[in-house]
Amino acid sequence: MEKFKEELTEIYHLSAAVSVLHWDQAVNMPKKGGGLRAVAISNLVGILHDKFVSPGFSKLVRSAKKELDGGKLSDEDACIVKEVWREFSREKKLPLEFVKELSETTSKAEAVWAEARKNNDFSLFLPMLRKIVELKRKEAELIGFKDSPYDALLDVYEPGMTAREIEMIFSELRDFLVPFLSRIMKSKSKVRNILKGKFPIEKQVKFNRMVAEKLGFDFEAGRLDMSTHPFTTQFHPGDVRITTRYSDRDPFYSIGSTIHESGHALYEQGIPMENFGSPLGDSVSLGVHESQSRMWENIIGKSENFWRYFFPRLKRIFPQNFAKTEIKDIYGYVNAVRPSLIRTEADEVTYNLHIIMRFEIEKDLIEGSIAVEDLPEIWNGKVWEYFGIEVPTDTLGVLQDVHWSGGLFGYFPTYALGNLYSAQFYAAARRDILNLDREMKAGQFAHLLEWLRKNIHVHGKLFSTEELVMRATGERLNAQYFMDYIEKKYSKIYEL
Amino acid sequence: MEKFKEELTEIYHLSAAVSVLHWDQAVNMPKKGGGLRAVAISNLVGILHDKFVSPGFSKLVRSAKKELDGGKLSDEDACIVKEVWREFSREKKLPLEFVKELSETTSKAEAVWAEARKNNDFSLFLPMLRKIVELKRKEAELIGFKDSPYDALLDVYEPGMTAREIEMIFSELRDFLVPFLSRIMKSKSKVRNILKGKFPIEKQVKFNRMVAEKLGFDFEAGRLDMSTHPFTTQFHPGDVRITTRYSDRDPFYSIGSTIHESGHALYEQGIPMENFGSPLGDSVSLGVHESQSRMWENIIGKSENFWRYFFPRLKRIFPQNFAKTEIKDIYGYVNAVRPSLIRTEADEVTYNLHIIMRFEIEKDLIEGSIAVEDLPEIWNGKVWEYFGIEVPTDTLGVLQDVHWSGGLFGYFPTYALGNLYSAQFYAAARRDILNLDREMKAGQFAHLLEWLRKNIHVHGKLFSTEELVMRATGERLNAQYFMDYIEKKYSKIYEL
Repeated sequence: MEKFKEELTEIYHLSAAVSVLHWDQAVNMPKKGGGLRAVAISNLVGILHDKFVSPGFSKLVRSAKKELDGGKLSDEDACIVKEVWREFSREKKLPLEFVKELSETTSKAEAVWAEARKNNDFSLFLPMLRKIVELKRKEAELIGFKDSPYDALLDVYEPGMTAREIEMIFSELRDFLVPFLSRIMKSKSKVRNILKGKFPIEKQVKFNRMVAEKLGFDFEAGRLDMSTHPFTTQFHPGDVRITTRYSDRDPFYSIGSTIHESGHALYEQGIPMENFGSPLGDSVSLGVHESQSRMWENIIGKSENFWRYFFPRLKRIFPQNFAKTEIKDIYGYVNAVRPSLIRTEADEVTYNLHIIMRFEIEKDLIEGSIAVEDLPEIWNGKVWEYFGIEVPTDTLGVLQDVHWSGGLFGYFPTYALGNLYSAQFYAAARRDILNLDREMKAGQFAHLLEWLRKNIHVHGKLFSTEELVMRATGERLNAQYFMDYIEKKYSKIYEL
Repeated sequence: MEKFKEELTEIYHLSAAVSVLHWDQAVNMPKKGGGLRAVAISNLVGILHDKFVSPGFSKLVRSAKKELDGGKLSDEDACIVKEVWREFSREKKLPLEFVKELSETTSKAEAVWAEARKNNDFSLFLPMLRKIVELKRKEAELIGFKDSPYDALLDVYEPGMTAREIEMIFSELRDFLVPFLSRIMKSKSKVRNILKGKFPIEKQVKFNRMVAEKLGFDFEAGRLDMSTHPFTTQFHPGDVRITTRYSDRDPFYSIGSTIHESGHALYEQGIPMENFGSPLGDSVSLGVHESQSRMWENIIGKSENFWRYFFPRLKRIFPQNFAKTEIKDIYGYVNAVRPSLIRTEADEVTYNLHIIMRFEIEKDLIEGSIAVEDLPEIWNGKVWEYFGIEVPTDTLGVLQDVHWSGGLFGYFPTYALGNLYSAQFYAAARRDILNLDREMKAGQFAHLLEWLRKNIHVHGKLFSTEELVMRATGERLNAQYFMDYIEKKYSKIYEL
């Protein structure tokens, strides 16, 4: 067991090295650094994989599994072995040939997808996507499943979650959101445009650093930089790095994305340092990770309390731009609801509808009940049904997201699950913390962070997601908290 | 041979990954990132070493060596095999036990040295240093040597160079420098202090970027950042990064160090990209590397021509500070000669004397003709003899440099060799380039860089240092060019 944990930690160190190379590539690398960096990364990933499936490590995993089955392990060690075994047996079920074919197909597919999107020509992408769907269906067969083949894919991102459970939750959510959105659309309440003039980027950086710090981001254990696409990466809990993107016409994009990534980072910084190097130091699921980013970004970062504290400070940095702006304008602006074609630009109300339609489509694809060539039609039909808008081009429709070209089936639902978890966690935290609203108005987030640390962050993968949610909130995941939150907040904003 | 080169390139990629981790540690890493980063690096270095000495790679090296011995290889392939074999057989001669003991001793020693330096107490460091000298003498025995055991250590940094040759060159140099320095000291010519007011760091950064770019540094294939100690690192010729340190009281420190590191970087950027992954893509020796940095830093960066072009530009950035300064003041200031206790602060005239005394001492240590406990006395005696000054404390004397605590015996001479090579290369370039002086006055360095590229950079390790110098300059290394340069330049400045 000791030897097993030691070698496992080495694998984690290697993986951290890969992350450093990725981060550097996104943040610092000069133009001509690219080609050979890609090779360096893929070499390192190869070494990492070889180590994981090497005979030596395999033997250690198998003997640890025997100890687990013999019931001899502490809770912590049991968690470690269970999680490694899960990944290990998954890898073992996929023949090398299959893994190679999938990886080669998806690495080619991204460029093909980009070309198809650029040319607004789904037929360019069709053969590739058909092949990928075929391979993912094969993958599900190889992994095995009880109910739906989609479960086998979902399991990578949201262990323990099933298509059936998601379907139940999502239909309830959809049946609430679609009519609610249409009521908002009929509302006469209008949002004022508050963007005037230029917002110098250095000043935005200064504000964002202040916000991240106030929320609890530890700059001695992390950084905030710029990159083309915002992301969070962690090498270990003492070095967690977030990035954002800036526009000098709109400070709210970088603020929102900084808060979102800070949410991810607070989770990673909240994992005990001594747990680095095993699943005890890993976040429990993508959905729960997303719950942290979305809670800070939306429930907190788009609340009136938040802006009562931060707007005066923002105004101090951009006095000209906001000379005639009041808090209620900001609040209305950051919470504007508009049915839109593009998921990544969606507001809190419509965002989940984007996810629900992707889930429905990819589940049907993997279960084989729809054909890949029918995707544009199916897509456009759902957009009309859920948002009441027409899709003018596939570029703005079925071709908008990169995920499927990378074979990431089962990933999308975690975005919406994150929103649902966030509302449920927040409701529980609010019950537990006496003066939360008052604290937030004063720019104090320490008690909330402490609650998240204690109930979520410190546990790593010690509990399953289901158990973690149950322990933290007293009940299983359900959409009610999110629907209540949305209904209350937006009924007020849109005077419904 | 193909398989051998392929695996060798993988080793180079791994080594580049280690360099990225190091660079990030020095430039970006937050405070709490440290402990685990050190472990990640040492893990990766372990993997790198295991790969190099693995049975699979060993077999490839041996069979490549057979092809080399059979005379079947092209010049390029022969160079690759010869160089890898050199390193490989060196590694094979050192038993694992020995390597471990040396590495453990030196990693402990750095902290002990730092403590001793802080407390000005050589006796704290003495047992450790005695042990290190013993181990390095052992290393020389294990490696083997013809003449002096020092040759076996020198060979790592300056392949082909011998203690005897250095001794000859250095005594000639010393016999010129010591009396020349004393003439300068007696000169009545005085240097004016030109530093007035503050020099905001962002402005210095801007100026340094402009200088580096003018010299030929390609910012699409590199970066300029800040770190505690200036350094250059390369992942491959398309990603070469330099750093410097800033003081807001003195812009000349960062300018000089930026030019120095740019010199190193221009060498690395000048290596053909397609040679990455083998010794063909490696610089030929530390001495020649240093010749590049020192040529740009001193011969060019401290010339009148250079400042004729750059001073008006510097003045435009700092108009207040330099309101009453003229080019001759700048020229006098950057070339001020002062015998000093600290090597890293030394000027062009005294720098080599610092190196010569270190060489004499470490050669005697390794040959066993002096005892470690006598070092302070020997050190202080040499400082008196060469510089005519007293050493007040060991902190400012024998304890000032980190090198010996790291076991880097044989490294110091490469600094002075670099100065000698630089003068010899520059004299040859000046013979070949018609209007070099006129070009430099106009801030044009393209012809000079082209000369360095053609004669030095592109060759990697294809020729030995000796052969490279012979081809580029028509003769073997000798100190005459450097002495002529120093004598001419400083006789004028100090009106001797």
